[in-house]
Amino acid sequence: MKIAIIGGGSSYTPELIEGLILRTKTLPVTEVALVDVPEGKKKLDIIHGLTTRMLEKANVPIKVTATLDRRQALEGCSYVITQIRVGLMDARAKDESIPLKYNHLGQETTGAGGFAKALRTIPVILSIARDMEELCPDAWLINFTNPSGIVTEAVLKHSSIRCIGLCNAPIGLLRGLSKYLEIDPDDLYVQYIGLNHLSWANRIFIKGRDVTDELFSNDDFLQYATYTLSGNPGSKELLSVLKAIPSYYLNYFYYERQAVEKEMESLRNGKGTRATQVIAVENELFELYARPDLNEKPPQLSQRGGALYSEAALSLVESIHNNDNKMHIVNVQNKGAIPDLPYDAVIETNCLVNSTGAHALASGNLPVGISALVKAVKTYEQLTIQAAVTGCRQTALLALLSNPLIHGADNAINILNDLLEAHRAYLPQFFGGEGA
Amino acid sequence: MKIAIIGGGSSYTPELIEGLILRTKTLPVTEVALVDVPEGKKKLDIIHGLTTRMLEKANVPIKVTATLDRRQALEGCSYVITQIRVGLMDARAKDESIPLKYNHLGQETTGAGGFAKALRTIPVILSIARDMEELCPDAWLINFTNPSGIVTEAVLKHSSIRCIGLCNAPIGLLRGLSKYLEIDPDDLYVQYIGLNHLSWANRIFIKGRDVTDELFSNDDFLQYATYTLSGNPGSKELLSVLKAIPSYYLNYFYYERQAVEKEMESLRNGKGTRATQVIAVENELFELYARPDLNEKPPQLSQRGGALYSEAALSLVESIHNNDNKMHIVNVQNKGAIPDLPYDAVIETNCLVNSTGAHALASGNLPVGISALVKAVKTYEQLTIQAAVTGCRQTALLALLSNPLIHGADNAINILNDLLEAHRAYLPQFFGGEGA
Amino acid sequence: MKIAIIGGGSSYTPELIEGLILRTKTLPVTEVALVDVPEGKKKLDIIHGLTTRMLEKANVPIKVTATLDRRQALEGCSYVITQIRVGLMDARAKDESIPLKYNHLGQETTGAGGFAKALRTIPVILSIARDMEELCPDAWLINFTNPSGIVTEAVLKHSSIRCIGLCNAPIGLLRGLSKYLEIDPDDLYVQYIGLNHLSWANRIFIKGRDVTDELFSNDDFLQYATYTLSGNPGSKELLSVLKAIPSYYLNYFYYERQAVEKEMESLRNGKGTRATQVIAVENELFELYARPDLNEKPPQLSQRGGALYSEAALSLVESIHNNDNKMHIVNVQNKGAIPDLPYDAVIETNCLVNSTGAHALASGNLPVGISALVKAVKTYEQLTIQAAVTGCRQTALLALLSNPLIHGADNAINILNDLLEAHRAYLPQFFGGEGA
Amino acid sequence: MKIAIIGGGSSYTPELIEGLILRTKTLPVTEVALVDVPEGKKKLDIIHGLTTRMLEKANVPIKVTATLDRRQALEGCSYVITQIRVGLMDARAKDESIPLKYNHLGQETTGAGGFAKALRTIPVILSIARDMEELCPDAWLINFTNPSGIVTEAVLKHSSIRCIGLCNAPIGLLRGLSKYLEIDPDDLYVQYIGLNHLSWANRIFIKGRDVTDELFSNDDFLQYATYTLSGNPGSKELLSVLKAIPSYYLNYFYYERQAVEKEMESLRNGKGTRATQVIAVENELFELYARPDLNEKPPQLSQRGGALYSEAALSLVESIHNNDNKMHIVNVQNKGAIPDLPYDAVIETNCLVNSTGAHALASGNLPVGISALVKAVKTYEQLTIQAAVTGCRQTALLALLSNPLIHGADNAINILNDLLEAHRAYLPQFFGGEGA
Repeated sequence: MKIAIIGGGSSYTPELIEGLILRTKTLPVTEVALVDVPEGKKKLDIIHGLTTRMLEKANVPIKVTATLDRRQALEGCSYVITQIRVGLMDARAKDESIPLKYNHLGQETTGAGGFAKALRTIPVILSIARDMEELCPDAWLINFTNPSGIVTEAVLKHSSIRCIGLCNAPIGLLRGLSKYLEIDPDDLYVQYIGLNHLSWANRIFIKGRDVTDELFSNDDFLQYATYTLSGNPGSKELLSVLKAIPSYYLNYFYYERQAVEKEMESLRNGKGTRATQVIAVENELFELYARPDLNEKPPQLSQRGGALYSEAALSLVESIHNNDNKMHIVNVQNKGAIPDLPYDAVIETNCLVNSTGAHALASGNLPVGISALVKAVKTYEQLTIQAAVTGCRQTALLALLSNPLIHGADNAINILNDLLEAHRAYLPQFFGGEGA
Repeated sequence: MKIAIIGGGSSYTPELIEGLILRTKTLPVTEVALVDVPEGKKKLDIIHGLTTRMLEKANVPIKVTATLDRRQALEGCSYVITQIRVGLMDARAKDESIPLKYNHLGQETTGAGGFAKALRTIPVILSIARDMEELCPDAWLINFTNPSGIVTEAVLKHSSIRCIGLCNAPIGLLRGLSKYLEIDPDDLYVQYIGLNHLSWANRIFIKGRDVTDELFSNDDFLQYATYTLSGNPGSKELLSVLKAIPSYYLNYFYYERQAVEKEMESLRNGKGTRATQVIAVENELFELYARPDLNEKPPQLSQRGGALYSEAALSLVESIHNNDNKMHIVNVQNKGAIPDLPYDAVIETNCLVNSTGAHALASGNLPVGISALVKAVKTYEQLTIQAAVTGCRQTALLALLSNPLIHGADNAINILNDLLEAHRAYLPQFFGGEGA
Repeated sequence: MKIAIIGGGSSYTPELIEGLILRTKTLPVTEVALVDVPEGKKKLDIIHGLTTRMLEKANVPIKVTATLDRRQALEGCSYVITQIRVGLMDARAKDESIPLKYNHLGQETTGAGGFAKALRTIPVILSIARDMEELCPDAWLINFTNPSGIVTEAVLKHSSIRCIGLCNAPIGLLRGLSKYLEIDPDDLYVQYIGLNHLSWANRIFIKGRDVTDELFSNDDFLQYATYTLSGNPGSKELLSVLKAIPSYYLNYFYYERQAVEKEMESLRNGKGTRATQVIAVENELFELYARPDLNEKPPQLSQRGGALYSEAALSLVESIHNNDNKMHIVNVQNKGAIPDLPYDAVIETNCLVNSTGAHALASGNLPVGISALVKAVKTYEQLTIQAAVTGCRQTALLALLSNPLIHGADNAINILNDLLEAHRAYLPQFFGGEGA
Repeated sequence: MKIAIIGGGSSYTPELIEGLILRTKTLPVTEVALVDVPEGKKKLDIIHGLTTRMLEKANVPIKVTATLDRRQALEGCSYVITQIRVGLMDARAKDESIPLKYNHLGQETTGAGGFAKALRTIPVILSIARDMEELCPDAWLINFTNPSGIVTEAVLKHSSIRCIGLCNAPIGLLRGLSKYLEIDPDDLYVQYIGLNHLSWANRIFIKGRDVTDELFSNDDFLQYATYTLSGNPGSKELLSVLKAIPSYYLNYFYYERQAVEKEMESLRNGKGTRATQVIAVENELFELYARPDLNEKPPQLSQRGGALYSEAALSLVESIHNNDNKMHIVNVQNKGAIPDLPYDAVIETNCLVNSTGAHALASGNLPVGISALVKAVKTYEQLTIQAAVTGCRQTALLALLSNPLIHGADNAINILNDLLEAHRAYLPQFFGGEGA
């Protein structure tokens, strides 16, 4: 059982390797192939060294290889995990700062920033999928690359590869919730509905009993759900009216102004965008990783974000590999699970996972209080995929006009112009070159 | 054939009477009953006087009556035309200024202002419908009261009265378009799609030939459609990408910031909101109307807005009365005409009209470039109707959260609080009183 | 204005020519090109002679030409009318007799017979459409070829030609109904819903008043509607429960056993199938047509069936040509008009017709009492089109299995085998040859 | 943990008790309350005796009680299992013989017989549900009463009780399939789609690999699936074209004629209908059951049909009780799992089951080859439920007209008349009495 990690030079990789070390009984992995682009070779080598030392120390007989040759890495794989960032941190910095020029949110997964990231990423992911069709057509593509829902939908629409999109937000919310309720996570069942980074926990059961109404009329719960789970900057009334806990990414929608102001203040204070901060953290991490005496995941990694990432990814692989029929909250094709979203839309919801894949549970129509937002964002996502694949500027503009975080046709046009220009090198499909 | 005009004291009434004078051959009206509320008695009397003089001068044997007793006016009617403003201009001024406090659009048909107007208006319209069920159950309710689509949907959902919603924007666009194209209006066919004040002309035919693609790649046409027809403050690229001419009300969505700034400037300059300006125009008009020597519609009325109002309303009545199978662009129940909107939603689109009513032509799914916006606004509208009928604050908040012109959950809550408080006298359903 | 009539040698053609003679003011036709296949040359020549004499007698300056060269006939056409019978009467006789071997209905438009006719006809119609795309891409295809709904759907799905499907059953029902009600046809409005040869009049208005409930609880009306309009062999309870008047073709579904028995008796009595009877009528007609002294439509034609055919076809052409916005009951693409049928299904319903084409009125969901039947038949139709285009035997068998007039998988297989074999010469797509 | 078994006097009950004896570790049941009607008292007493002896012998401390007082039995229950037959075997005999008079299938779950059984059963099940709402509102209703899908849908539509419908056909097919494939049942995943007694296994995976295409082009598999699994009297071509294994109940649809002939032959041979045969088996069984020395389930029970019944029911209860997230094929509300069926329809498909209930996996649209049949039957089912609840004869007739096993409007009327008359005592709702 061979696993390829595309973007293997990522600072997250040690977490995955640690996860594999803890799962030797359930996941009989023999080889992990780390792949990266030439610009990432230095980091890749550091990760290769660290993870080799980790496995040695744990005395686990998994071979780790590092390569710039993606096709070689894919050959014979059972699982391919993608955690790439097309254009690296430089591109992210642009995604975060260009929209701010127009008083718009600069965020790498939603709004204009997420849009630009999708345009750059989709052609690359589709070229990976194309290689997989040739070299390991039965392998599963576990996608962690953001915007994860959009990227997964692009793969499912434009290739024959089986792909599941992952995010660590749902598992985080479940953990926080069972901790607050002081119950065993196995006694908690949460119905999750929406899209990646646009999802809500909208029904909560304890030992099979529906406690949703009870909880949402309990002030202490509202306090915790609002401020701790959702990281919400506003009043508790929002959650009490929604009767649902929004993913913390929904603050970008419900409290957009505050988010933009925070980003602007960070810029004014010279702290730069989130990219600047992450670069600093990463530099520190890689310095650490490079030490020849380090042979386990350093605690500093948990500050990097992406906590529970390895947990989410590897428990999913376990369910597929061991056919264990567990319930996971992942990104899959809709096929009616949310009947008022398009049939071919990728959604984030509860799924039964076994060796045949992830099957969405039919959740019923979107609660009316969130449906306008979800439908608008899904329309934006589908137009974005189409624009990324065709390189059609008109479609790209319609995508931005459909995005609830873009305000005004003039801003949409200006932001589109700036983003296309800034990322020209990664967007050949918009400049007469070949796209996906 | 008796017609009741609810809100008969409106400055628009003389236009309707003029229309009836011009249509004596096709509309054999015998009585027009003007109804108004006690606060409007003075205006009602002036209108009663003027319209009586107009009919006398024209030598048309239609009896005009004026009354504060709505039930008496409804008895025996064939058509009921509603042009009411619950709370009069005072309420409008509040609808226009309260949202501005939060940097939000203050407009009486869309956004927060339109929302408040709907909450006040729906209970009154439903009480009219209830009277009609008793006194003239076979009469047609021709609704001109804004927000016209929402009000019409409320009637169709909550009464058995046959109701068609009207707006003069579509007919205005058709006129402008045939003038520009220098063709006979009968040679022009325009496919209209959307909701009231949220509609687009998205296919244009001349003598049966589809010229849509041709026109939208013609720069001169784009110039005219953008700046003259749509009154658009931005670039021509928007229309060239939409391949549709937006109603001028869509500027509030596509160029919201500019609209808000304009409103703020008007306030800063002491010109007040639109209500202030309309009050001035109306005062002038009524001074004129009161002159005993005036016996025709004064030319100043055309500056009041609402041009073509009488044309739209009376040609619709003609089609019903004379079973003439003409095509009108009106507001009717969807029933699949736009399959991706709810079955029971009221939409604004091309309809065949005859004595059995207005039948929407099946237009197909919403063009993808406008679907996110239309679906969001329709969700807002349906929640607003539900809130108006039930007096449920939670539903009212969900409505605002679904409205693309409301930004941020905190603003939604604050604006809702202010509007409910300001219009308390007209919103008993939210304060423990009886609603619709 | 040139019209091509494909299948111009049909005995119906004189009726069309008579219609053109009566419409010289509204339809300025200059040329009628009659086209037929070599096997039909003799009939074509007779028709050419008769119609030339008819036009001469009427002193109408329309040129009639007759040709075996379809492409020449299509060049420059504005309207193309198709009334073809692939395989001629011989094929019809097989369609009618093969199913009877298995105790199944033998009918040329529904059941197994209609299925075989569709398989033969679709490739030919699509080759006509392909010629039109090249030679007269803006012309309208008025299809009278049965099964008219299926054939029209095939054209709309597989070509860019604008096509409207026609049937004379709806206009016949309207005529019968207004006669019974003793009202002017213009005062009657009937809502028609369903598919070609599977449609119901399910709401009836007189001068705008809905009289449906009233009529269907009136015994005299039920008597007339059941026995005269529907030609129903059973009790009146069916119509009183359906609250709709079925097209007389629905007797094949509601009273299938009786229809099969009647066909079998006709065979036993040596009268042959309907084809045999029609051949006799046609021979007589053509003997008459050939007389050099005949210069008008002979009264015997009306016994041939197809009454009102010319009326339906030419009043439709008038509405398109003169942009007159009249209401016609024709076969068009659904696009939501009946929301619970597929978007791309062709349906038979009320349409507004003008120079831009026929626009279905949104009728709402199918009445629940007819929905099972309509959905099953539409599924059968769509599979039949797919089978005709691909020549896939499996799809053809699934089509028959979906048809409510086919009973039992074994019969489906046997009937399919027999039909494919019998019509082998006209079904190259199923035998390794080229299909549509 | 208390379980009530309504229809506790059924010959199946010992199987359930045996299942409980085998599951003492996973299902900590303390009391089983057997309920029956006065006419069933004798059988109830026999079952009470036998099951008490079985539990004693197994030394399992579950108390079994027997009562005619349903409300007493329901009090405090966690699970209620219904296995009732309204009108007992006498009514069944009528359901099976009346349709045969008209040459129609006489079967107690499909066709006219199933229809009559539904009309009688639904009011009784709803009165049980009403008692549960009062006495054990949180209990689960596990319905085994046929027609199981219709009965379950009636409960879900007309009560607040959580209900899951069961059938032993799916588990039987899975067992047969894994035996044929010589694989561990846990390595087999079968996608099941349809309605109760109208379902297909349409995708088959072995260890996560989709082997559907492979199997359906393998002649040996087709042979086994056709003749052994489906009990099909026809050729293998049916399954090869469907690419799905039909439940053996589908023979009533695919091979109706053969089924009717078999029933008629049985009548001619004096063997009576299935009811007659079952009565004989039952008499024998109860004779056996009554023996004071019998203290375990006798092997003869397995010949009675309903094999695996206990397995299906109790493994479902285990999944709910132990929150074990296992996959079961059961009858639940659709909610989009099959998007082209109504949202509120009960379907039979793969579900994830845990303490919150059974969640259908989104399977996607119906395969086109089965959709006509499934939609027609679901329409019939929904009309039948409506008729059973309202006692409306018109609705009942529309239900029969929608049923693919009813042929001809005249037969539908005659069969309806006969069934209503024959079961008059159990159908007060149709005779001016009170229904559900």
